[in-house]
Amino acid sequence: MHEIRRKLINTKEKKILLIVLDGLGGLPFPLKTELDAAKTPNLNKLIKKSETGAHIPISNGLTPGSGSAHLALFGYDPLRFNVGRGVLEALGLDIKITNKDLAIRGNFATVKKVGTRLIVSDRRAGRIDTKSNKRIVNTLKQNIKKIGNVLVDFESGLEHRFVCKLRFNKKLSYEQCLISDTDPQEVGVSPLKPRNLNKKSLNLSKIIQMLINKISKTLIKEKKANYALLRGFSTYPEIPTFNELYNLNACSITTYPMYKGISSLVGMTPISSVGISIGSQVDALRKAYPKYNFFYFHIKKTDSYGEDGNYKKKIKIIEDFDKVLPSITSLNFDVLCITGDHSTPSKIKSHSWHPVPVLVKSKNSFYGLSKRFTEKECLKGSLGIFEAKNLLSIIFAHADMLNKFGA
Amino acid sequence: MHEIRRKLINTKEKKILLIVLDGLGGLPFPLKTELDAAKTPNLNKLIKKSETGAHIPISNGLTPGSGSAHLALFGYDPLRFNVGRGVLEALGLDIKITNKDLAIRGNFATVKKVGTRLIVSDRRAGRIDTKSNKRIVNTLKQNIKKIGNVLVDFESGLEHRFVCKLRFNKKLSYEQCLISDTDPQEVGVSPLKPRNLNKKSLNLSKIIQMLINKISKTLIKEKKANYALLRGFSTYPEIPTFNELYNLNACSITTYPMYKGISSLVGMTPISSVGISIGSQVDALRKAYPKYNFFYFHIKKTDSYGEDGNYKKKIKIIEDFDKVLPSITSLNFDVLCITGDHSTPSKIKSHSWHPVPVLVKSKNSFYGLSKRFTEKECLKGSLGIFEAKNLLSIIFAHADMLNKFGA
Repeated sequence: MHEIRRKLINTKEKKILLIVLDGLGGLPFPLKTELDAAKTPNLNKLIKKSETGAHIPISNGLTPGSGSAHLALFGYDPLRFNVGRGVLEALGLDIKITNKDLAIRGNFATVKKVGTRLIVSDRRAGRIDTKSNKRIVNTLKQNIKKIGNVLVDFESGLEHRFVCKLRFNKKLSYEQCLISDTDPQEVGVSPLKPRNLNKKSLNLSKIIQMLINKISKTLIKEKKANYALLRGFSTYPEIPTFNELYNLNACSITTYPMYKGISSLVGMTPISSVGISIGSQVDALRKAYPKYNFFYFHIKKTDSYGEDGNYKKKIKIIEDFDKVLPSITSLNFDVLCITGDHSTPSKIKSHSWHPVPVLVKSKNSFYGLSKRFTEKECLKGSLGIFEAKNLLSIIFAHADMLNKFGA
Repeated sequence: MHEIRRKLINTKEKKILLIVLDGLGGLPFPLKTELDAAKTPNLNKLIKKSETGAHIPISNGLTPGSGSAHLALFGYDPLRFNVGRGVLEALGLDIKITNKDLAIRGNFATVKKVGTRLIVSDRRAGRIDTKSNKRIVNTLKQNIKKIGNVLVDFESGLEHRFVCKLRFNKKLSYEQCLISDTDPQEVGVSPLKPRNLNKKSLNLSKIIQMLINKISKTLIKEKKANYALLRGFSTYPEIPTFNELYNLNACSITTYPMYKGISSLVGMTPISSVGISIGSQVDALRKAYPKYNFFYFHIKKTDSYGEDGNYKKKIKIIEDFDKVLPSITSLNFDVLCITGDHSTPSKIKSHSWHPVPVLVKSKNSFYGLSKRFTEKECLKGSLGIFEAKNLLSIIFAHADMLNKFGA
């Protein structure tokens, strides 16, 4: 589909804003979803002139990771384009990844010996602070520089998170990197072995095991962070960028490394810093307005509180967003789209497959069908329920940026 | 999908009527769409016993040309089958097109010299009358019979429109015909050059340029029609017909050449004349009733008034149609389907991607969900929002013409 869009796109210079509230969708808990319960006077006003519907991130019943969900929102078929967590984290930390690199997302963890077995007692090493993380990563950098011919590097993330990069002397294939995660996802059990998921990744799984052993030996005296759980083994995917496909000058305003990573992967220029407030994000948007024509604006905390099962705080973030909405709409974008990447209902404390409400406001909107920006009301809209990968066509159509298809 | 339908179809002799109101769908303008605002007592009555929904002509956000939109309604995947405008126009004018022919849609236009540049001052030569058109086409016929080995022919359309046919001595491929249009779509600029869109069409683009030069030279003394803008370069596509696929004896009742063209392309017998009234179309339908089992009935003016931004006249056409509806329903078709090929909201004065209301009346209808035949009410129906290429399956199902799929 992005080939079709590429052929139909015209060169009109429009201003498009895509706002993604991460994990936005919810479930009735017990009667109202977070969007139902939130007080959103500004969204209530905006929706009166908006076209509405709901998107399915990947396919019916499939719960997406954040990377896949975002690729779909950016118009890529998430079943075809797959980006590993390791690469996303690395890009978010400004680590350059080439097709000779394997990127790995790591968590520092606490393990203890029970008899001869190693048991995970904390999967996040007590969420150690970022300063301790930096000290530990420095130790690893100094002690582990090579495994055979493979160059090894580490980079600190926030709290217990880090990225490890292995540089090989030739190009890695997607299949070679298919190694299973070592995080058992629960405490009181042993870390998993890095298994090769096909014959081509046999060699790599051995190197990963050696890496884990070296890390474990180096960190043996640490009280909390004495082990590393690794996942998201991946190499640089070949994805055509927004600029190549649509000649769009796009930027991203995110507050969390992974989303910066995925936006830069598709060719958006990141223009904000980690951890800033929604208000500062709006300031960044206002400042960037003249320079770009596509703006991706990401709000993380709706998802975080959903994952924590914190219904009230998720509502609060939605209300905080509603408060800054007038300062966004006053910028007069040609198209304003507000949605989530997936649902993260507080009730189930994790990502889910449920459809996500969508609002598109432009001069071409079929409005008047939804009274509020909620799951229930958006289902009444003229966009119906559609696959997220088609959202970009809808957005471009609203911007008058797609020529007619066929004679 | 038409392969699946072909395998499942049975030989029951049913009477099916598909009524297409061109560009039917609208947008709230400011509160009501054209269908909302129209007084339609007969449709209001009919919908009480009808199944309803809305179709997406091609895919989310894609605005179709009339040809592609109709191919989808006739059950062909519009992303796979592509018919050029030139071929559609030619068939509409009863010009026989083979796979050795290149068909081109032309507009007579007015150009003037500004310095050394040629500038388009009227893209339709002041919408010259059809009589003048015939005189000019005769001049062209007499003066331009060949370009090298290629035979050239011309045929008059209505007002400023004409068709040019180039006959080669061997078969043309789809790729060879990929030449860009020369209509700049605005006045005050130069006509565009016919560019080859791939290497295979290199030779053809040169021939087209020679053709344009010859036409220009021949018409040099014309006051209005002194130039020709060419588009829709295309050759005969290989499309299986309704008869081949479904053993259906189909006819078309249209009033405008292009729709006659597309109907004959899929094997329907055209049984009406250009420019007749809706009433005369109904007479033709009544007369043809015993002879065919599938009837395609096309009403053009909903689209024309939509393109003109004439909200009131678009409503009037819908109301005119409503008035003749009882004389249609009294014929007792086994299945009556009413829809549009795409939306042409008066508000935006052009084709659009918005879903189009659909009504299917048969003894098998799931009725009771929609109160009126409007965009909003049809969205509540049991057909939901579906891709237009699947409408034919729904119609055949209502006619009890599809056997069970699978064991």
